[in-house]
Amino acid sequence: MSTEESSILSDADALVTSKDPLHPANLIPELCAAFYKVGWVTGTGGGICIRTGDKVYIAPSGVQKERIQPSHIFVMPYPQAEPSPHADRVFLRRPTLNLKASACTPLFWNAFDLRNAGSCIHTHSQNAVMATLLWPGPVFTISHQQMIKGVRIGGNARALSYLDTLVVPIIENTPDEEDLKDSMEEAMKQYPEAAGVLVRRHGVYVWGDDWQKAKTQTECLDYLFEIGVKMKLAGLPTVLNE
Amino acid sequence: MSTEESSILSDADALVTSKDPLHPANLIPELCAAFYKVGWVTGTGGGICIRTGDKVYIAPSGVQKERIQPSHIFVMPYPQAEPSPHADRVFLRRPTLNLKASACTPLFWNAFDLRNAGSCIHTHSQNAVMATLLWPGPVFTISHQQMIKGVRIGGNARALSYLDTLVVPIIENTPDEEDLKDSMEEAMKQYPEAAGVLVRRHGVYVWGDDWQKAKTQTECLDYLFEIGVKMKLAGLPTVLNE
Amino acid sequence: MSTEESSILSDADALVTSKDPLHPANLIPELCAAFYKVGWVTGTGGGICIRTGDKVYIAPSGVQKERIQPSHIFVMPYPQAEPSPHADRVFLRRPTLNLKASACTPLFWNAFDLRNAGSCIHTHSQNAVMATLLWPGPVFTISHQQMIKGVRIGGNARALSYLDTLVVPIIENTPDEEDLKDSMEEAMKQYPEAAGVLVRRHGVYVWGDDWQKAKTQTECLDYLFEIGVKMKLAGLPTVLNE
Amino acid sequence: MSTEESSILSDADALVTSKDPLHPANLIPELCAAFYKVGWVTGTGGGICIRTGDKVYIAPSGVQKERIQPSHIFVMPYPQAEPSPHADRVFLRRPTLNLKASACTPLFWNAFDLRNAGSCIHTHSQNAVMATLLWPGPVFTISHQQMIKGVRIGGNARALSYLDTLVVPIIENTPDEEDLKDSMEEAMKQYPEAAGVLVRRHGVYVWGDDWQKAKTQTECLDYLFEIGVKMKLAGLPTVLNE
Repeated sequence: MSTEESSILSDADALVTSKDPLHPANLIPELCAAFYKVGWVTGTGGGICIRTGDKVYIAPSGVQKERIQPSHIFVMPYPQAEPSPHADRVFLRRPTLNLKASACTPLFWNAFDLRNAGSCIHTHSQNAVMATLLWPGPVFTISHQQMIKGVRIGGNARALSYLDTLVVPIIENTPDEEDLKDSMEEAMKQYPEAAGVLVRRHGVYVWGDDWQKAKTQTECLDYLFEIGVKMKLAGLPTVLNE
Repeated sequence: MSTEESSILSDADALVTSKDPLHPANLIPELCAAFYKVGWVTGTGGGICIRTGDKVYIAPSGVQKERIQPSHIFVMPYPQAEPSPHADRVFLRRPTLNLKASACTPLFWNAFDLRNAGSCIHTHSQNAVMATLLWPGPVFTISHQQMIKGVRIGGNARALSYLDTLVVPIIENTPDEEDLKDSMEEAMKQYPEAAGVLVRRHGVYVWGDDWQKAKTQTECLDYLFEIGVKMKLAGLPTVLNE
Repeated sequence: MSTEESSILSDADALVTSKDPLHPANLIPELCAAFYKVGWVTGTGGGICIRTGDKVYIAPSGVQKERIQPSHIFVMPYPQAEPSPHADRVFLRRPTLNLKASACTPLFWNAFDLRNAGSCIHTHSQNAVMATLLWPGPVFTISHQQMIKGVRIGGNARALSYLDTLVVPIIENTPDEEDLKDSMEEAMKQYPEAAGVLVRRHGVYVWGDDWQKAKTQTECLDYLFEIGVKMKLAGLPTVLNE
Repeated sequence: MSTEESSILSDADALVTSKDPLHPANLIPELCAAFYKVGWVTGTGGGICIRTGDKVYIAPSGVQKERIQPSHIFVMPYPQAEPSPHADRVFLRRPTLNLKASACTPLFWNAFDLRNAGSCIHTHSQNAVMATLLWPGPVFTISHQQMIKGVRIGGNARALSYLDTLVVPIIENTPDEEDLKDSMEEAMKQYPEAAGVLVRRHGVYVWGDDWQKAKTQTECLDYLFEIGVKMKLAGLPTVLNE
């Protein structure tokens, strides 16, 4: 390695080195560990990305999400042309370990490009998966739950009211995660007020203006998937006629 | 900001600055983090307030309840005339951050004014919500459970006996949380022995003489909602004929 | 307080003051906090006592079990005549705080007197309560579960085999916890191989030669109550014909 | 004890003494504590072993798995002739405490000998047990779940695709755990692509090239057992026709 290369690496490492616990490179490991505890990212699945202006921080793929280190974080410039095939992606920093960039990247990009999101979370929560199994159509719907008031739509700009019916589009899973990009984009355009997109037999993508909003939005939706599934199994209607 | 104003702020900050872990400004963050872990306050919902004599300490609204800092706490004088519209409320201290006072405030005031409570807890526990769905009438009832003996009535003065039937009134939810104030008050007057008030499709309000009693009362009730729901779903009677 | 009294208190406090984390006065708070996390002792219910030779250490009643301090622990001499009414009990140490001795004391004594136990645990686990509701007769029974091999009978002397059917007697609850003493004693005599005694609509008492065995026995039984309840609700037979 | 013996012990103890948190003697206690929290190893059941080249590190049997110390770890040389009866096993190190070697040892050896595994995990997870009860035949099967993509087959060499049906063989339990060795071996030969082996009414054995893969494989399978059980109980088909 030439001196120049070493210096480049060093600059790249600076992108994920900070004493601030709220720096994305520190937050992502902390949040992934918290998501692991609630069952959102077991078996290496799921994750979170955070965008701060022109930089996107993403957790690696295929690793234990509760044991990520800041040095494992990928950094990408934003914007960049559709980062769909791995080979075409531009990175500001790659971990020196032989880690794989997340296959969720094109899906996260949808949240940035279509909703101007500052963060996007992907979970494999069983509440989300069960919701997609018990709602076999193109949407999950629930009404008359206080937690609906916690859901924000239109890029987090507006909160739903208790009288609104929550509608979350469900797209069909594909063998290759990156192939979800187009159907997710289509669903986001067809449902401009959607707070997230469910993927049948897979999980959910939820975004927010920042990591706090992405996280609390994911909590609200996961709560509603869970109570919706409980209601459905108990034979209770999940949407009331008005 | 004038020197005088700065000094006033400083006095106000002193209200939430203490090395005593049992000071309300320290307890509220700790308890909210614990409530988060058991699913009572996810998605920023729910919370706790503590009253010590003439001061009421309240967590802010719409924030991650497991990440509250003492500096986020609102302090209000007690008593004060009905603090129903936000604009009319009197504060001894507001956080310098742009945080919203809790919409639960008028409901917490019911517990202070009608039960002389020292603390009130509001949860969005799914056990509470499921109980309001499976008990479609105006009350949740359960009998012959040892945990009923943990429930205290009449401002915590008297414990229920194993032979008592627990009755928790259920009020209907409203689009605006503050509008629950009157129906909650009515329920507390109609059921003077109620240990808490359920809100349909929303959660529960529980109070106690102090934070310890409010917390243990909430645990007892939540346990009874949970086992009641399990019994109902298993086809077991929840109240035995005597 | 006279100097003599102060010195007596001081000796008593020494009974619960130790730097050894395995001292009963340190273990009881740690174990109660762990039991709280798994739902065995919420709402101040349940607890654990540890006997080391001629001393019995007991957690106080009616307090938050996850917040016990060593200074809250009661110490009683063993043996002593039936400690049934509170007034008659002999203590080596009472907390200086106004704490109530555990109403479970006579039940714990059964484990000491009839099984020579070194520790006894009482939980309000919902798995135990549901088991008593779905097994309406005088015993809970389950067979052909690997976890049965973890259960020890006859004062922990012998482990059950995979081919044994586990039988746990169920006694009926009483309004006053101390009144369970006689029926628990009767059940322990009628089922000399019982590893614990269930109390209908209440919980379970489990003992062991020492705190480790009491705890692991409680874990084995709680697991078997939980899987038994799941099987029963799924329509699966819990005891196989042989 | 002679000086020579003392020196031998000392060398043996060096095998489990390391400041590296990733040393097997430190990892096993940490991982067992984590497995305890998710319900895989309560009541002393279950465990993990790690093989690093010619040494196998195994947790002791019949102890609280969340309280293991590095000094409790057994070390065995690898390879060695079938370590089936306890008496015949060769140890590089035995704990000085009177601890029992794990009865799982012959089963772990299957994973080493037949799959060249670097680690093997055994859980008593209720998800695994319920799966063996609701799939009464010789295999558990599930299809069309994203989590299937996390499962690796053929000694972790190849990941399954979303279009693959996961097949996990189920063997019948035996009164003596060591007697499972032959049927587990047979199942592993009959299902060369199996990622683990379920034991009816008992639990599951899962292996991996290293502890990370063994752990994430166990998480993937446990997730699939759990969602499979939920689907079956909800009346949903777990394998789709193609």
